[in-house]
Amino acid sequence: MRTFINVEDIGDIRTALAEAQEIKNDRFKYQHLGKNKTLMMIFFNNSLRTRLSTQKAAMNLGMNVIVLDVNAGAWKLETERGVIMDGDKSEHLLEAIPVMASYCDMIGVRSFAGLTDRDYDYAETVLNQFIRYSGKPVFAMETATVHPLQAFADLITMDEQWQNRNARPKVVLTWAPHCRALPQAVPNSFAQWMNAADVDFVVTHPEGYELDPKFVGNARVEYNQMKALEGADFVYAKNWSCPGVTCPEDYGKILSKDMSWTIDDAHMAVTNNGKFMHCLPVRRGLIVTDDVIESKNSLVIPEAANREISCSVVIKRMLECMKDF
Amino acid sequence: MRTFINVEDIGDIRTALAEAQEIKNDRFKYQHLGKNKTLMMIFFNNSLRTRLSTQKAAMNLGMNVIVLDVNAGAWKLETERGVIMDGDKSEHLLEAIPVMASYCDMIGVRSFAGLTDRDYDYAETVLNQFIRYSGKPVFAMETATVHPLQAFADLITMDEQWQNRNARPKVVLTWAPHCRALPQAVPNSFAQWMNAADVDFVVTHPEGYELDPKFVGNARVEYNQMKALEGADFVYAKNWSCPGVTCPEDYGKILSKDMSWTIDDAHMAVTNNGKFMHCLPVRRGLIVTDDVIESKNSLVIPEAANREISCSVVIKRMLECMKDF
Amino acid sequence: MRTFINVEDIGDIRTALAEAQEIKNDRFKYQHLGKNKTLMMIFFNNSLRTRLSTQKAAMNLGMNVIVLDVNAGAWKLETERGVIMDGDKSEHLLEAIPVMASYCDMIGVRSFAGLTDRDYDYAETVLNQFIRYSGKPVFAMETATVHPLQAFADLITMDEQWQNRNARPKVVLTWAPHCRALPQAVPNSFAQWMNAADVDFVVTHPEGYELDPKFVGNARVEYNQMKALEGADFVYAKNWSCPGVTCPEDYGKILSKDMSWTIDDAHMAVTNNGKFMHCLPVRRGLIVTDDVIESKNSLVIPEAANREISCSVVIKRMLECMKDF
Repeated sequence: MRTFINVEDIGDIRTALAEAQEIKNDRFKYQHLGKNKTLMMIFFNNSLRTRLSTQKAAMNLGMNVIVLDVNAGAWKLETERGVIMDGDKSEHLLEAIPVMASYCDMIGVRSFAGLTDRDYDYAETVLNQFIRYSGKPVFAMETATVHPLQAFADLITMDEQWQNRNARPKVVLTWAPHCRALPQAVPNSFAQWMNAADVDFVVTHPEGYELDPKFVGNARVEYNQMKALEGADFVYAKNWSCPGVTCPEDYGKILSKDMSWTIDDAHMAVTNNGKFMHCLPVRRGLIVTDDVIESKNSLVIPEAANREISCSVVIKRMLECMKDF
Repeated sequence: MRTFINVEDIGDIRTALAEAQEIKNDRFKYQHLGKNKTLMMIFFNNSLRTRLSTQKAAMNLGMNVIVLDVNAGAWKLETERGVIMDGDKSEHLLEAIPVMASYCDMIGVRSFAGLTDRDYDYAETVLNQFIRYSGKPVFAMETATVHPLQAFADLITMDEQWQNRNARPKVVLTWAPHCRALPQAVPNSFAQWMNAADVDFVVTHPEGYELDPKFVGNARVEYNQMKALEGADFVYAKNWSCPGVTCPEDYGKILSKDMSWTIDDAHMAVTNNGKFMHCLPVRRGLIVTDDVIESKNSLVIPEAANREISCSVVIKRMLECMKDF
Repeated sequence: MRTFINVEDIGDIRTALAEAQEIKNDRFKYQHLGKNKTLMMIFFNNSLRTRLSTQKAAMNLGMNVIVLDVNAGAWKLETERGVIMDGDKSEHLLEAIPVMASYCDMIGVRSFAGLTDRDYDYAETVLNQFIRYSGKPVFAMETATVHPLQAFADLITMDEQWQNRNARPKVVLTWAPHCRALPQAVPNSFAQWMNAADVDFVVTHPEGYELDPKFVGNARVEYNQMKALEGADFVYAKNWSCPGVTCPEDYGKILSKDMSWTIDDAHMAVTNNGKFMHCLPVRRGLIVTDDVIESKNSLVIPEAANREISCSVVIKRMLECMKDF
């Protein structure tokens, strides 16, 4: 594996899930793979879970880790040619990226959507610059439009819960209100991974919040939240700002703060004793009530803990490929 | 050992001091204990000595270390239930702490007193949240009211100086003036550890600066500084703000800047060729004169160096307990 | 080697270059030397290349690394005696440096020139305090007046290009315009190292930009840039502010923004198919054109990659000396 961005990068899903359990049973089993290999984690935005779980995964695999916090404001890379660089951009990406890459064997990139320029965000400009100019394996640690380490961890968590049942689970991704405009990276990747997994997948949100077809594909969209939740085995709540699919000028805006979408006991009551999921951090009272997130059906802590596992599988796969370089 | 906060956590003092010398003679002797174990150091406040010495101690013991700087202003955890989290608190402690804990085997917490709400500070709210919700061994890297790694290092330093003498040393903890309001964590822990050690312990400070009975216990308090210092073998100088014991509304305030309390040669002259101690950083001219801190009787550098040793003993003890988990 | 500041510290240049190639062929060959040894990297100023390459070199050599970011504004060390420290300086260097040194085996220091006080900068005050008071091996990670890890990496890069030729190469250090006032550390060290190497060395810059004699020595200075570049095998471009040699009151000022000094194809055309070099980061359009820096004759990426190698040689030398301590 040279890049980890989309679900296709992980290959067969059942194989990946089996590998996740193998690593979870012995997190240090593949420690020899990372010896004298260095992971560089490059953060253009703050991170808590991703920073900690990725660092832990890399150390489990015997790697050295260098963490680089790039102040997104202070470190603007020039990307054009022919420019006289006498402004606030002190380095050109054609120098900066190959140089950083020269000190490591693998790169993780964190770079949020700006939510002002849809084309720029959905082109994954920063991530693709690293892929193109670094010459090293690159994985997304949440970028403008994807968060595959989260989606893979979510799938691992669902797989652990669903083992030994016969039917396909019903999985509902539901929008929920929030006080700030948030990126679509988490719902995008979750939709993409659920479409690839063997589940009955439904997406529900107010009108105008339609996810990009590239990620949501042919998933069933149901605008009536309660109807969508009926019989759900897994309820995945998340806020996102307008993806600008039907109305590009609304990209990144908050179209609704409808508190009737907050997941509470009444919502969970129509599910099939459904499990509650969220990628964290979560704002209680907006996304979900205290009662639901603290209930025995809440999977938020196991999901977060599985971030170490999903990342371990990804790094292991990348290390294995290095033998061929 | 599952927590390290108070002197009782270390058990028998002579055993702990012997262990400190054993580790000082071979800092890497117990390196096997930390293999594939991760320490997470969580800083809500800045740190120099603690950050460096703790990281060094953990690496000596073969651990991986993850350092997390939590901007105290930016990362406010919600602690209440039933709140609609639409303000500046973006995560609830019931999610944040278990998640961080899931990526490590041991936690060190740095969290200063706010010095505005005595009850909140003395309840050790932040530290106790980590103990209660992390499920992992937790040690204080200076918290609202205690700094046990410092007190233990101080005791190791005194023990090294006092070896092979017969009498109990006279130890004087003396308040000294400072330009800013400082927490009571260092004097609190020093008093607690001296009470537990086999020394003749005296505390001296201006009226109103009485330390909390929980820490100072039955120690002798002498308001006349020169009288207190007479015949002292060790002089431990430190500034602290009003602990609010006699007058709760004065909590955290500066009650005195009396420069006659600054430790100079005249003060040291009445001691028994006493050693000068301070936890550092120290403001010369306020706490102590250049002459005293640079004298051959000054122990400030050995005390700081012994922070690596006291922390090594604590981490080693915690690692040993993990075999039983 | 106890300090690494000037070219003399590296000893015989051919031996050092041979050692660099040996390490480049097997970066982990001397990993045993660093076992249980800790490098402390202390940054008073931001760093990208130096931070990453030094950390990588130390890890290659098996060391533990502690990175300390000292906010230059917030952490002002008192250096005088007899001062009442009631201002913004919270610690005296006589405590701060020995304490930091007590937690490590080797120190790297990054501390830029302030460009306001020539005497202070050229006395290398911060670096020399660490050398004098730490008691540990110290190397410069770019300080007020020198950047020897860069100059050594540059020399390694030139050596790789020049192998198997008979003549001494002509090397031209040329000033180029920039929008900000920059230190002289890079040209100072480059000049010093070129004087020590077996090359034909020429320096060219507008009048007033004369480098300090301590570094430039008897190097040939040519004020006509095009004349200087004629027949050059290596063109090393760099901006620097006024070194204040001929006119001390101009120290640190921008005396020229003459864009005719920007290295473009016309400049390179008069060279002997010369290689283009720069330490990075570089502002395109000011220092050099896109065409020149992207040409096959550009060595900027190999130079940066060789920072890992030059630093590895330095750390290896310092580790070898420790056996004698």
